Amino acid sequence: MKCEIIVIGDELLIGQVTDTNSGYIARKLNPVGVEVMRTTVIRDREEEIISAVEESMQRADAVIVTGGLGPTNDDITKITLCKIFGGKMVFSQATQDNNDALFAKLGKEMNHLTRSQAMVPDCCKVLPNVVGTAPGMMFKREGKILISLPGVPYELQKLIDDSVLPMFERCATDDRIFHSTRIVTGFTESKLAIYLTDYEASLPSTIKLAYLPKPNIIRLRLTARGTDSDALYCDMYEATRKLDELLKENIISYDDATLEEILLKELQERNYTISTAESCTGGGVASKITSISGASANFMGSVVAYDNSIKINLLSVDEEIIKEYGVVSTQVVEQMAKGVAEKMKTDCAIATSGIAGPTGGSKQKPVGTIAIGLYCKGKTHSLLVTIPSASRARNIERFIDLALFNMIKFIKE
Amino acid sequence: MKCEIIVIGDELLIGQVTDTNSGYIARKLNPVGVEVMRTTVIRDREEEIISAVEESMQRADAVIVTGGLGPTNDDITKITLCKIFGGKMVFSQATQDNNDALFAKLGKEMNHLTRSQAMVPDCCKVLPNVVGTAPGMMFKREGKILISLPGVPYELQKLIDDSVLPMFERCATDDRIFHSTRIVTGFTESKLAIYLTDYEASLPSTIKLAYLPKPNIIRLRLTARGTDSDALYCDMYEATRKLDELLKENIISYDDATLEEILLKELQERNYTISTAESCTGGGVASKITSISGASANFMGSVVAYDNSIKINLLSVDEEIIKEYGVVSTQVVEQMAKGVAEKMKTDCAIATSGIAGPTGGSKQKPVGTIAIGLYCKGKTHSLLVTIPSASRARNIERFIDLALFNMIKFIKE
Repeated sequence: MKCEIIVIGDELLIGQVTDTNSGYIARKLNPVGVEVMRTTVIRDREEEIISAVEESMQRADAVIVTGGLGPTNDDITKITLCKIFGGKMVFSQATQDNNDALFAKLGKEMNHLTRSQAMVPDCCKVLPNVVGTAPGMMFKREGKILISLPGVPYELQKLIDDSVLPMFERCATDDRIFHSTRIVTGFTESKLAIYLTDYEASLPSTIKLAYLPKPNIIRLRLTARGTDSDALYCDMYEATRKLDELLKENIISYDDATLEEILLKELQERNYTISTAESCTGGGVASKITSISGASANFMGSVVAYDNSIKINLLSVDEEIIKEYGVVSTQVVEQMAKGVAEKMKTDCAIATSGIAGPTGGSKQKPVGTIAIGLYCKGKTHSLLVTIPSASRARNIERFIDLALFNMIKFIKE
Repeated sequence: MKCEIIVIGDELLIGQVTDTNSGYIARKLNPVGVEVMRTTVIRDREEEIISAVEESMQRADAVIVTGGLGPTNDDITKITLCKIFGGKMVFSQATQDNNDALFAKLGKEMNHLTRSQAMVPDCCKVLPNVVGTAPGMMFKREGKILISLPGVPYELQKLIDDSVLPMFERCATDDRIFHSTRIVTGFTESKLAIYLTDYEASLPSTIKLAYLPKPNIIRLRLTARGTDSDALYCDMYEATRKLDELLKENIISYDDATLEEILLKELQERNYTISTAESCTGGGVASKITSISGASANFMGSVVAYDNSIKINLLSVDEEIIKEYGVVSTQVVEQMAKGVAEKMKTDCAIATSGIAGPTGGSKQKPVGTIAIGLYCKGKTHSLLVTIPSASRARNIERFIDLALFNMIKFIKE
């Protein structure tokens, strides 16, 4: 089924907010055969909403609209959809009851603006929003549907999970789309593409190969599309089997996993515990690892040693070593890794010290330089790398990825 | 000047990657009068690229296309733009020289795919990409321009900064757009809207007010649009002055700042140092604070005490207190905050302990419960809050915001 998403909100078009809703919708609806063909981000303007909706309704079978459902003047999605589908606004007692319960729970009082959230177009089916005041709405026209959802991510997610996904599952067509991803290391994108030229040419027309390069790794994604799901599964099975054979040595994950997920899996398999000692990454490595539910079985903790005194006092780094080699050095991070592993009694440890910028760089160690110290079961390993410097945020992000990536390699060896 | 953005890539429409490029472009181009009217995300398909480009070229003065410029088969943007603008592909020696230098620096070897990156349409002006192999391209037609940029964020950002922004600055029209943001606390969105009803009605037509609610805070954004920049500045000055008067007590930031930026500013003003002791937030509070350049003057470090043994051994939390009150309790986080402040010799400290989920909740302390401990110059404060639970990632994000927000309030008091 062909689907389009329309994202409404000035805040997105001036770059104040990043849209993550359309990605969530696609990830949830792809498996039931709903393919997102296009996402359009528009401003809170009546004429722009009308034209975007009409265009999408032409092209797609289903249109999902997000945002613009707040109680304030700048939000006009509901009233505009009511115009488009030719209805009038009516009071929805069910929505009011839902919102009353919500306000009672929060101990807040209703006012005329929040009460107006219970006014809905009479030409739509209301989809209850149990975690917010703006209900979802479904409109139908000429065999096509339009679903309007609030822009607040957790409200949208709840509505997708509880109302939208089950609906699409019920009216599922024969269309099937699925993806299979491998994470590969040791290749540049172009080298890998050349290595896989014959393989790619041999793929059946139902299967498409895509390359998603990141520093150090490439995500290879196979996408299968068709209506005969048995044949499609066979094609996909054969395509992944061949790919695994060709890339055996270079695959670091057989799932579309993040580096922290891969690392945690490697730790779990070996029953190893880990800790981190972080300077330039400021707790980012720990934060990534603990973003995974169940991390507590293997992750013990971290010392973010931003100031040198913390490195010396809490991680037993030798002050002389800092003076001699500088704080961004393999010598210091090795001591940091050993120090935190000892302090937290873990089998493994990751340590980072680097220059995230924009200031602090020198000729010898420019912004983008990081020292990574790794410890695992009595062995240490360290490296000093300089990446092409970008923004501070981007540098830190790449430092974290580098640390995780090298720890995975170190454990596997 | 009216601008539209077209983002190309299957990976965006299946939700594997989130587009942050369009936000970057808007933030950079808004100040020179370029307004992004619409962003369209489409797949790597020739016919879809052609129709999206033609539609945007109809509506806008300038179109910026991102993505689809890699060397592999799935990337077809360059060849499709060449078709649209009626040219043929030719070899660009300047691009080849740039790419040779890049490869030499990285110590990598060119192959036929990477060499193909130097083939460009003869109907475009090449915009050099000094950090990647895919050059930017500028096409012109009937007084309108289309700029094609690589999708890799730091390559795109460099091209925007070095080539695109200066170009728009040179051909700047009289259009002016600027924003002014206040961050407000102590109101719900609807309460604030009611309180500001008369104010909003009194605004000149050149100025628009928007509400961006987040837990605990609301960003109020005034946007001024027009051609007479002097008059516009006067209108904006008057509008913000009135707003500041009305909301005085409730404004926690006069800039569109993040909570970590606001906290750091408050610390800097008082010359206070800070450290964090984190359990459920896993280093996320430290990571946010250190994302700001210059944080090292006030931020000393953090102990991520995921395991209870770390809380006891490194932060001097009393084991008996954990047994009596549970690890998610005001008693424990107060000890954590005091413990880390002592260990790191800081004036202030933030401590967190909570249940991010999806497992670990109980009837008394469900998923979404967090204890926050605050320490500042000998005084402690703590709170136990339960937020409506969402995904683990979302819960952690809100925990971090709650901790930062309450620390700001505590310091200000």
